[in-house]
Amino acid sequence: MYMHILHRKICKGKGYVIMDVLEAINTRRSIRKFTGELISDDELKAILKAGFQAPSAHNLEPRDYVVIKDREIIERITEFHPYSKMLPEAGCGIVVCGDREKQPQMGFLVADCSASIQNMLLAAHGLGLGAVWCGIYAVENLVKSMSELLNLPEKIIPIGLVVVGKKAADKEPKDRYDENKIHYNTW
Amino acid sequence: MYMHILHRKICKGKGYVIMDVLEAINTRRSIRKFTGELISDDELKAILKAGFQAPSAHNLEPRDYVVIKDREIIERITEFHPYSKMLPEAGCGIVVCGDREKQPQMGFLVADCSASIQNMLLAAHGLGLGAVWCGIYAVENLVKSMSELLNLPEKIIPIGLVVVGKKAADKEPKDRYDENKIHYNTW
Repeated sequence: MYMHILHRKICKGKGYVIMDVLEAINTRRSIRKFTGELISDDELKAILKAGFQAPSAHNLEPRDYVVIKDREIIERITEFHPYSKMLPEAGCGIVVCGDREKQPQMGFLVADCSASIQNMLLAAHGLGLGAVWCGIYAVENLVKSMSELLNLPEKIIPIGLVVVGKKAADKEPKDRYDENKIHYNTW
Repeated sequence: MYMHILHRKICKGKGYVIMDVLEAINTRRSIRKFTGELISDDELKAILKAGFQAPSAHNLEPRDYVVIKDREIIERITEFHPYSKMLPEAGCGIVVCGDREKQPQMGFLVADCSASIQNMLLAAHGLGLGAVWCGIYAVENLVKSMSELLNLPEKIIPIGLVVVGKKAADKEPKDRYDENKIHYNTW
């Protein structure tokens, strides 16, 4: 269990307590206030690893990751993405991209990238960090602006941006369970 | 932390060990062999709860869940869905649906449902169960057949099917990390 060992190594000496997966799922919130301190390289790697571990349709793994810490690129993202104002304070963004040459079916491509993003959000939470998912696809001008800024090849579609950093404060868990949205056998 | 307590209650007396979130992410595999024994109602509820806890664009939560245990409906799904052959042995499927009246942007709708599905897969793994994600959207005949079978309103789009059950065997974790798919600041 190499990755688990890596995780424990990251946590060692940082007062981090192992967090149960259901607790992580149930207590994770979107974090938009950060301290300004960057996450460590080990933390970044653990989050990226989590992204890779998500399933994908037919195991094609049609995903690439663009890690952004450059201050100028970060500033430019905030100029065209209306929900990325917290990115400069977090100091780190990861654009999860789909490769439509590997997976031409856009429904599956979005699903594969979204599963990857959800893993990354949970990993960040498990590491005691804060993260938020800023949507990109299929908002036409966001896809276009991000593709141009990051110099993406035509086959590479930016699906979502994960903003991650040291959170300024915890947020209370929110129970979203709603019996009315559960149906049995048919609608 | 009501949901965490519920989780611990489910685990009590079943020899289940709390699983760290990064370990869960890194060891989860798609499970396609089941014992035939149904998951319990408590387990099902914990998995559905995990689904609800996923983030959604603008917090719209445009998701509904159809839980299927009826043997006849299960059989009919296997007749049109080519990757659902394990469903009868698992005995339980959950169709995660998107509500396009709440979220008309299909990219976001697929993302919201996929994040929910990923949470459910991780929850199942954390509970010691097996699960696999069978894609539906945007394969036209699968969307159509599932919508008809489940009598879905026109605004409700079936995005993916989670098959969940008692796994027949564990699978070794697989390390999918690939340095070549990570880019820094630009492509």
